[in-house]
Amino acid sequence: MFSNRISDVPKSFIREILKVSADPSIISFAGGLPNRDLFPVENIKDATNKVFDIVGPDVLQYSNSEGYKGLREQIAKRYKSFYGIDVSTKNILITNGSQQGLDLLGKIFLNEGDSVAIEEPGYLGAIQAFGVYKANFLPVTVSEGGMDVEELKSVLQNNEPKMIYTVPNFQNPSGITYTNENRKDVAEVLKGSDVYLIEDNPYAELRFSGSNKKSFMEFLPEHTILLGTVSKTIVPSFRLGWIVAPDIVMEKLLVAKQAADLHTNYFCQRIVDQFLIDYSLDEHIEKIKKMYLSKKQNMVNAIKKYFPEEIEFTDPEGGMFLWVTLPKGISSMDLFDMAIKKNVAFVPGDPFYTNKTGVNTFRLNYTNSDADTIDKGIKILSECIRDIL
Amino acid sequence: MFSNRISDVPKSFIREILKVSADPSIISFAGGLPNRDLFPVENIKDATNKVFDIVGPDVLQYSNSEGYKGLREQIAKRYKSFYGIDVSTKNILITNGSQQGLDLLGKIFLNEGDSVAIEEPGYLGAIQAFGVYKANFLPVTVSEGGMDVEELKSVLQNNEPKMIYTVPNFQNPSGITYTNENRKDVAEVLKGSDVYLIEDNPYAELRFSGSNKKSFMEFLPEHTILLGTVSKTIVPSFRLGWIVAPDIVMEKLLVAKQAADLHTNYFCQRIVDQFLIDYSLDEHIEKIKKMYLSKKQNMVNAIKKYFPEEIEFTDPEGGMFLWVTLPKGISSMDLFDMAIKKNVAFVPGDPFYTNKTGVNTFRLNYTNSDADTIDKGIKILSECIRDIL
Repeated sequence: MFSNRISDVPKSFIREILKVSADPSIISFAGGLPNRDLFPVENIKDATNKVFDIVGPDVLQYSNSEGYKGLREQIAKRYKSFYGIDVSTKNILITNGSQQGLDLLGKIFLNEGDSVAIEEPGYLGAIQAFGVYKANFLPVTVSEGGMDVEELKSVLQNNEPKMIYTVPNFQNPSGITYTNENRKDVAEVLKGSDVYLIEDNPYAELRFSGSNKKSFMEFLPEHTILLGTVSKTIVPSFRLGWIVAPDIVMEKLLVAKQAADLHTNYFCQRIVDQFLIDYSLDEHIEKIKKMYLSKKQNMVNAIKKYFPEEIEFTDPEGGMFLWVTLPKGISSMDLFDMAIKKNVAFVPGDPFYTNKTGVNTFRLNYTNSDADTIDKGIKILSECIRDIL
Repeated sequence: MFSNRISDVPKSFIREILKVSADPSIISFAGGLPNRDLFPVENIKDATNKVFDIVGPDVLQYSNSEGYKGLREQIAKRYKSFYGIDVSTKNILITNGSQQGLDLLGKIFLNEGDSVAIEEPGYLGAIQAFGVYKANFLPVTVSEGGMDVEELKSVLQNNEPKMIYTVPNFQNPSGITYTNENRKDVAEVLKGSDVYLIEDNPYAELRFSGSNKKSFMEFLPEHTILLGTVSKTIVPSFRLGWIVAPDIVMEKLLVAKQAADLHTNYFCQRIVDQFLIDYSLDEHIEKIKKMYLSKKQNMVNAIKKYFPEEIEFTDPEGGMFLWVTLPKGISSMDLFDMAIKKNVAFVPGDPFYTNKTGVNTFRLNYTNSDADTIDKGIKILSECIRDIL
């Protein structure tokens, strides 16, 4: 009865985990939610009222598929000030969060069985979005410092992927950031091929320490597609993201966007635009970074205090997640089953791999618990780890 | 380079027409926009501020893929009060306008080449959405009173479509409404088959005269999928619609929705919910109906006054459009080219057919022009018609 593309998709594993974790008696490091205490509610409220007053009834009318020009201009400016790269307003398409960007890219690029190179471990939402278009995934290992360039070369020798998907800054799930050298090397491997590199970039602005890295756009300008979002810096519920793509790709994206939902919520585009005009995004982001850094430190300290020494973990310079590696052969799924009985939740590594199960890695989110809860939860988790070892 | 599904989609014809029509010196009957003077701006503004005060920061947080439960409960209640049908909250999925409903249905049902029966003429947005999934369209003629039942029978004898797409109330583009008898007959033909009937229903509440018709849900409860939206009754820019589907379909829709964009804008779901709690939708809709009826009368009167007698046109009891049929062999595209030179625009019939060009029909929108402009525009159009005859 159903299409092949949807019949093969299993019920979302992570939705089930998040459902379990939603129980308030659970200490959850499972979600990926920004901390609600940081939402600029009053400023958004003021911006909203200003939009009603300035724009009037037209703010409730249908709008164009590309998105509001003023907002797209501000996004272009931010690329210039943050990354020093030139992005033209006409190459920006406003989407319903970057997740829709992934869906539209899958839609315009992938025939059944087409290949997509993807970080391993990689972002679950990308695996889901491209999986629906029946992508043939080519995983390339990512570890401290970035993507394994030799592995990438060998993958490209045997295959012609249409895209390569990356989250080069504070990656979800691992928290890893590619070094500038690694980016250059990856770009060098791709140069001359037809592969589009997707730089999905929700976390770059949330850097606590170290220096900002360069965008792939600098190394591979003709074949880089950028995905962005306000979900981690301003507001998630608006579902406001964007794609930056070359003209030839943008033309197809626009057709796909129109068929998908005509356009993104115009009212909320105007609110975010007004917020960016009236308030300092930099000042707001400083507050987020301060809080997240402190929570990250709490978690790293607790891990150092409680976890057995042989357990490896990343210590990210920004973003929302860190990544734990258990000794070989230990399943993080089994650990999850033990931990949830003691009311602690996290996301086992499995859904972040395209073709492996029973992996020994898992993701911890640190942005949504206070210091005491982090200490308590990591302590309980360490007891489970000792039990399973 | 691109997927087959997107390579074959031509640049949207209607986008080009709407671009031309956007010129303020043009009298445009081309668009399909609700009249901005009727948007309940002050009430929406008050509802928005109340939502900020009641819900607080959480209104800016990520939410669930199904949509806000309170809003879905109100939608279920409205189905009961307006249609007398029982719809369960769990069978309602909130989408980005009904256009996303169409995209998700295409995604979960259609493999390349799968058949979709569709009204002829039919809604352009549905042709686009299903076209992207490479549907094989089976057009079934719709004329005064509804769908041609004999034609439908013969189509079903030779094919097994997965869906049949209908807009049974004040259809876009024709303004036609199916009679209750016709709905019963159509349902009778479908009974026992696996075909899902899509009842896309943006206009039913905008009825000026005559009596409300029954939902297909009454005749074909197991195999009817409803699409709804607030775009024509409250606010278009929010992109807020919904699908009502049986459990087995809902499960797949939910997977597709999550992969497509995680969830619909939660902030705006809460605003519409608050608006529906605090204000009378019925009173608001009365205002819309009063204005649209008057404009429809203006247009019908002008057509009667100016058009040659042999020109046929529909006189809808609601909705936003009427449909003109020129004598056989006269192309409405040619008429469009003549009319646009005299600064009058409409939508030629061609994009509403899945496999015909140079048709003799066209769509007129009456909701966005004042009485004098309607009279003037129809007069100019009548001169062009006389020229082309």
